[in-house]
Amino acid sequence: MGSTLDPNKESEVRLMLYRKWGSKEDPVVYYTSSSLQDQKILNEVKEVMKAHIIELFLSNYISKEDAKKLLQGVNSFSSIDPSYEDVHEALEDHIIKVAGDAGGAIGMGRSRNDHVATALRLKMRAELLNLLEDLLQFREQLVKNAEVFSKIAFPAFTHFQPAQPTTFGHYLLYVEEEISSRWEAIFKVLDLINKSPLGSGAIVGTSVNLNRRREATLLGFNGIVLNTISATSSRSDLISALMEVTNLGLAMSRVIEDMILLSSKFVNVLELPDTHVSTSSLMPQKRNAVTMEVSRARISKVIGELMSIISSYKSLPSGYNLDLQEINPLMWDILEEIEGVVKVLQDLLSKVKFKAINLDKEMLATDEAEKLTEHGVRYREAYFTVSKTVREGSFKPSITIDESISRKAVEGSPSPSRIAEGISFAKERINRDVHTLREYKNQILKGEGELRLIENDILQEGN
Amino acid sequence: MGSTLDPNKESEVRLMLYRKWGSKEDPVVYYTSSSLQDQKILNEVKEVMKAHIIELFLSNYISKEDAKKLLQGVNSFSSIDPSYEDVHEALEDHIIKVAGDAGGAIGMGRSRNDHVATALRLKMRAELLNLLEDLLQFREQLVKNAEVFSKIAFPAFTHFQPAQPTTFGHYLLYVEEEISSRWEAIFKVLDLINKSPLGSGAIVGTSVNLNRRREATLLGFNGIVLNTISATSSRSDLISALMEVTNLGLAMSRVIEDMILLSSKFVNVLELPDTHVSTSSLMPQKRNAVTMEVSRARISKVIGELMSIISSYKSLPSGYNLDLQEINPLMWDILEEIEGVVKVLQDLLSKVKFKAINLDKEMLATDEAEKLTEHGVRYREAYFTVSKTVREGSFKPSITIDESISRKAVEGSPSPSRIAEGISFAKERINRDVHTLREYKNQILKGEGELRLIENDILQEGN
Amino acid sequence: MGSTLDPNKESEVRLMLYRKWGSKEDPVVYYTSSSLQDQKILNEVKEVMKAHIIELFLSNYISKEDAKKLLQGVNSFSSIDPSYEDVHEALEDHIIKVAGDAGGAIGMGRSRNDHVATALRLKMRAELLNLLEDLLQFREQLVKNAEVFSKIAFPAFTHFQPAQPTTFGHYLLYVEEEISSRWEAIFKVLDLINKSPLGSGAIVGTSVNLNRRREATLLGFNGIVLNTISATSSRSDLISALMEVTNLGLAMSRVIEDMILLSSKFVNVLELPDTHVSTSSLMPQKRNAVTMEVSRARISKVIGELMSIISSYKSLPSGYNLDLQEINPLMWDILEEIEGVVKVLQDLLSKVKFKAINLDKEMLATDEAEKLTEHGVRYREAYFTVSKTVREGSFKPSITIDESISRKAVEGSPSPSRIAEGISFAKERINRDVHTLREYKNQILKGEGELRLIENDILQEGN
Amino acid sequence: MGSTLDPNKESEVRLMLYRKWGSKEDPVVYYTSSSLQDQKILNEVKEVMKAHIIELFLSNYISKEDAKKLLQGVNSFSSIDPSYEDVHEALEDHIIKVAGDAGGAIGMGRSRNDHVATALRLKMRAELLNLLEDLLQFREQLVKNAEVFSKIAFPAFTHFQPAQPTTFGHYLLYVEEEISSRWEAIFKVLDLINKSPLGSGAIVGTSVNLNRRREATLLGFNGIVLNTISATSSRSDLISALMEVTNLGLAMSRVIEDMILLSSKFVNVLELPDTHVSTSSLMPQKRNAVTMEVSRARISKVIGELMSIISSYKSLPSGYNLDLQEINPLMWDILEEIEGVVKVLQDLLSKVKFKAINLDKEMLATDEAEKLTEHGVRYREAYFTVSKTVREGSFKPSITIDESISRKAVEGSPSPSRIAEGISFAKERINRDVHTLREYKNQILKGEGELRLIENDILQEGN
Repeated sequence: MGSTLDPNKESEVRLMLYRKWGSKEDPVVYYTSSSLQDQKILNEVKEVMKAHIIELFLSNYISKEDAKKLLQGVNSFSSIDPSYEDVHEALEDHIIKVAGDAGGAIGMGRSRNDHVATALRLKMRAELLNLLEDLLQFREQLVKNAEVFSKIAFPAFTHFQPAQPTTFGHYLLYVEEEISSRWEAIFKVLDLINKSPLGSGAIVGTSVNLNRRREATLLGFNGIVLNTISATSSRSDLISALMEVTNLGLAMSRVIEDMILLSSKFVNVLELPDTHVSTSSLMPQKRNAVTMEVSRARISKVIGELMSIISSYKSLPSGYNLDLQEINPLMWDILEEIEGVVKVLQDLLSKVKFKAINLDKEMLATDEAEKLTEHGVRYREAYFTVSKTVREGSFKPSITIDESISRKAVEGSPSPSRIAEGISFAKERINRDVHTLREYKNQILKGEGELRLIENDILQEGN
Repeated sequence: MGSTLDPNKESEVRLMLYRKWGSKEDPVVYYTSSSLQDQKILNEVKEVMKAHIIELFLSNYISKEDAKKLLQGVNSFSSIDPSYEDVHEALEDHIIKVAGDAGGAIGMGRSRNDHVATALRLKMRAELLNLLEDLLQFREQLVKNAEVFSKIAFPAFTHFQPAQPTTFGHYLLYVEEEISSRWEAIFKVLDLINKSPLGSGAIVGTSVNLNRRREATLLGFNGIVLNTISATSSRSDLISALMEVTNLGLAMSRVIEDMILLSSKFVNVLELPDTHVSTSSLMPQKRNAVTMEVSRARISKVIGELMSIISSYKSLPSGYNLDLQEINPLMWDILEEIEGVVKVLQDLLSKVKFKAINLDKEMLATDEAEKLTEHGVRYREAYFTVSKTVREGSFKPSITIDESISRKAVEGSPSPSRIAEGISFAKERINRDVHTLREYKNQILKGEGELRLIENDILQEGN
Repeated sequence: MGSTLDPNKESEVRLMLYRKWGSKEDPVVYYTSSSLQDQKILNEVKEVMKAHIIELFLSNYISKEDAKKLLQGVNSFSSIDPSYEDVHEALEDHIIKVAGDAGGAIGMGRSRNDHVATALRLKMRAELLNLLEDLLQFREQLVKNAEVFSKIAFPAFTHFQPAQPTTFGHYLLYVEEEISSRWEAIFKVLDLINKSPLGSGAIVGTSVNLNRRREATLLGFNGIVLNTISATSSRSDLISALMEVTNLGLAMSRVIEDMILLSSKFVNVLELPDTHVSTSSLMPQKRNAVTMEVSRARISKVIGELMSIISSYKSLPSGYNLDLQEINPLMWDILEEIEGVVKVLQDLLSKVKFKAINLDKEMLATDEAEKLTEHGVRYREAYFTVSKTVREGSFKPSITIDESISRKAVEGSPSPSRIAEGISFAKERINRDVHTLREYKNQILKGEGELRLIENDILQEGN
Repeated sequence: MGSTLDPNKESEVRLMLYRKWGSKEDPVVYYTSSSLQDQKILNEVKEVMKAHIIELFLSNYISKEDAKKLLQGVNSFSSIDPSYEDVHEALEDHIIKVAGDAGGAIGMGRSRNDHVATALRLKMRAELLNLLEDLLQFREQLVKNAEVFSKIAFPAFTHFQPAQPTTFGHYLLYVEEEISSRWEAIFKVLDLINKSPLGSGAIVGTSVNLNRRREATLLGFNGIVLNTISATSSRSDLISALMEVTNLGLAMSRVIEDMILLSSKFVNVLELPDTHVSTSSLMPQKRNAVTMEVSRARISKVIGELMSIISSYKSLPSGYNLDLQEINPLMWDILEEIEGVVKVLQDLLSKVKFKAINLDKEMLATDEAEKLTEHGVRYREAYFTVSKTVREGSFKPSITIDESISRKAVEGSPSPSRIAEGISFAKERINRDVHTLREYKNQILKGEGELRLIENDILQEGN
């Protein structure tokens, strides 16, 4: 029997591994292989395999010596031959070749289903941590710029019509608060992701008595997905993450739209940095906001990718289906695109210039009405009085743009004191989030460190 | 000037309120009015108006007597005439009619933009709390049924192919865990929703010195959305909620699909309750799983509604735009449909019957391979050995279905002890969530109670 | 047996019709009934029933006398009691009550599946014909306005940056051409819709020897969907129609966006009619483009509704499923919303005013470069020369805006002669389409007229 | 000035071409470049450039000698250096290098906007023609198999419940009819695509007097998009094509779902070819329908890609925006994926085996009721009589499955004569479509042949 695992009979072994019904020329191979896309989760798949090997050793299913060979097999695996069905088959085949007979133990109590589910969570966790880091930098940048522009008058708009005077700093604090809420939402989802499905077999677990909680700890997870059907076939937590990341994209898309419109020569309020505009092959005077246009389109791309995933997932019978494999590359692309938008938008917002413009005096109409109420007139009457002069073209404000801004009294408004307060508040919130994230990462590193220690100990075996 | 507010000149007042450029026959009225759909947030809009009135009083902008008249105006408002632009105009007009001259104060430091943003968060908060309650009941039901069916053999499947034996109780615990994760996700989002935008005016706040934090407390919020641009024009937190609710729908859609397929006469594993099936007008023998089919379609409807909202929101310039009004009815419909699916699925799952079937013996192949490893054979070799007999049709398992189930060793698997453990775990988690939700609601009730006390005190004025 | 059809035992009969497994309180009734939404296809369902009755008579399955009773039953049916499962059950029950014993023949060779598929195609055909009519009017309006504005200078833009001078008439001809292409696409799809599924039973046809082609003719169809599985369960042709209608919405959404942006006080190129703008409750100076904003949002709503339908339809097992019922109201809503947008946009475009503005001289840069090539300079060099002066701020065009427009030489450009040509071309195309549509409708009316003749003949029976 | 076009100053020239505001390290370059994705339209971009050069020559803007140099430049261009903004810049730069001074003429009366719009239509035309060819083969295959299986009994189902007996041939004819309708829809859209935007410049045309109709003919188009704004910035016709292609995917997704479900061991009606199934790494007995699962997921991917495009296009201001560039790769991916599904599904359906199964006798209930009506019983009464026996478990059909099938009388049903008729009909329709498509392609080839003739003549110049 050992002969079927003879490392020299490469092609035979390869075909024997999981697939038994056809040959390499069949659609089942060229059409369904995920080898190329699995490259993205290669490290995570290897990490999960290590945790599995260590658990087999700690549970006395394999000897330390065998564990060493298997770990060496994992460590020497570096790329996926596209003729394999997927990374799992390629890795197992590689281990069998490297570790010889011992390699046959790798499949014990382990299935591609729980293995990939675990790798996906590891990868998503890493991606979210990355994104959260980058968003913290973006927020810091925004607050810094808000300070610089805290007193530069800016036309707040609704319905894309100039509405009331504010400052550009106030606008930037708005962006910061939007990103901050998404930060919080993504951080909350991270906790749903950070649970281990490992040890659940193909769907109903295994008779191999693995300690699922220990495996979880070694991978830095803060718990397990208990039920083995959930563990192996649910992608709901991952979809939550993708939804929140898409939602971040939506929030940014509004700011992006502002940048495109306000930098148009039609409007002329902002000047985008040269490094973000392009000209036309026919019209040399153009300064097109091309990075913002591409960002805008990428967010639409992400929306569609989320819809692809939703459409795939909806009404899929429970348990693993190969459809789930197909959503993986879409997941990583969503994260990559949104990461890209974060970077490009941050770069642009750190360099955008404000043009000296005369704000439309009619933007003071509301102030004028509010001022009238200070002299005992009811607001709606004051509104009508002012409104009439605006329509008749006879509106003459009794205050300046700057006075208007200074008069704003409520928290979160653009008056100098409130802006200062807003900046302090944002800074505190960022500090708190920096701290929280660091703690969270330390917890993960602790588990991973343990795995590394045991791995090193095993690899020393017999040396 | 008071004459323009003469309560007898009804139609004139109505037209004078906000809209000045056209007449009632214009598209701007019949096409853009949200009066009908605003019925859904009528109570929340009134509640917000009360908080505003009380705040105006507490900040000494209006007298207690005026506050009383205004509150009476709010309390006597009960329906929206569709000729109004929206609930806000209708309510303000009503208050002016009831409170006379004092009514003109209502617009002070208040805009439809911050008002509706606040009402939407109140409504969403209420809906989510409702949904979370219902999901707790659903989960309790599932655990109860899991106990009943904890030992009934059931064919776990992957790729919609019979895979390995499990129990129906194990399947129901899977459903519970899926719902439980969504519960957690929705509860986390609830906290993002529970912040007050009130006092932010149209976009840049107001010179009226309102205490935004006090207003927030009176409405049971646990904080404010600070920046006034965010507060008035962001819907990101609401979209997070809708995404998570849709994700709950997706998780249920897989269970729904299972119900349709497994109850098909082709498969014949489950028997749906009579109250959930319908027959054909032409084929009397049919037992079609119609409630499940409708549920499945409603989840698709919800997916599209989310897409509508996303498509509306994407690239909308910052600040309020009337597009935002149009997403409101979609929001409530998403919640209503998912609530409906929860109820129908819970009802079905509490009554579904399991048919006595002979599970396919080939489902024991994995067990057989695992058993071979107990005698020193490497797993992959064992797999090949068994695999060969399966393909040749000579596979004879040495264990029974029940033994297979009992042999499962890992946490979360269907062996009797692990199922018992899973049930305990689920019960504990439900208890914890019941408690957490109760605490959360109490916190909200506390703030609302304060508002009620002050309101009563004002309404006593002069009696 | 006749007793079960006793018209006096109303409630019993009602429950006996199709559903046998439950009672009126069951989810299967309140959750799955389509009675309310079926109101939209009531007339079409009656028309199909008439064709079926006439066919049963012409094929000698029922007597003329019975046919008369049955047709009288159909004609006296006017509304659907919501306690019925759907319009089909309600109508059949009504016919049984009116026609007595003869009513029992109605189910012969007929199922809800082929009946509703036919009614949906009739309804869609009527809706598309309506829409095509309205679009022709819209196009006529656009060409008329294009003539009026054929020489009014207008800033053509790309990347929402002023690009080159054109005329507003040229812009309006662009809108006409966009609508015209969609017209053609929708008209082509109409032909796919105009096929009859009737006579296909529930899925495999029937032993009742109905002449399906004659039935088709009586309903004005130009052929049949041959295969009975396609006929009863495919919605692909309807989805094609909805896709094209959505695509029309997308084309309009770009024009709508132009209207919102160009009428902003930030840009100030267009003045929207008073009847399409609204002001703010807090800011009296605002002229918000609210009908356009609502239209924009409704198109997003439609996009989502299409997504709902797609998500429902994708991977639905072949044959009828109740999911198909749930997509019906979405179909009609898509048509209604797009019809609404057509009307509102047409109204606005027929009244929009152009503001006298000074077009930015830099828009002449391309003309300047092209002019240089007339003196032997290669275009790219000319481009660089001009480009340099633009960047240095020293660009001085040697021609005027009007000269620029007049210089345009190619077909479809805004020079006076090309505009005149474009207007002629558009008029001709409209005339051709008016004629084609009239012919198409006549063909339908011919079939329907035949049905009416036979119906009248039968109803005379015995008088 | 000539020095700026010095072919030796490569990097300078490159940067000078269109972009003037930044450097190669800027986001505007690395983030917005479409060079990689433009590889897909390289041939079409070259073809369009040739038509432009020939037109410049025929209109006497350039000499034959210059035309020769320019055409040689085009012909020697083979790949896009990713440091270019896009294929247009790369190609123009290459031509300038090859043709020297003459290269500067290439930009005359030509913009990337009309150039890419033309290339996209050429590419889409080619892709649709390809797809239509492949679908014709698929349809031929289906009819061939329908003949083979024309009498093999098969359980027609609705609501995924066995409904009435039919034959597998009847099912395959259903698939053919579905594909055939989509064929027709796609062919109709092809005609919308087949129009030339070339000669429209950046947005308002050009003063260079190009004969747009002659250019169109040279590229095999059957007309022009008249208005230059439409021509340069509309993607509506392309979106129509993508919608129809997606709709084809939806129709196939239902058949794919049938394949997955009916080949499940739970149902056991079909046996998929070995080349389309895979087994499990843990469960050796599994025969998972993996190619169908992947196809199903790819159709979901396509749905999302369509949503991405729709979301990008919706509300984009008129005129070219760079967002349009981003939808190009999505377009080609939709076509590629659907092509893939066509091939895989065709392969599977040509090899799928039918398992001998005993069809459930209850499927004869409708036949029994219809048979009763032959003895004078009204259908609804007959239905109730049969229905009662079914529910009581006493139903005993008086006919066999084969008799049931033979009794079907209407066109499109599975009785032997109707099947034969259906096969003839399908064959005729295919023949007609083969002919129509050939004619259509010949028309295109004629125009392209003309271009080739002129090109050859120019290239002979001076030899």
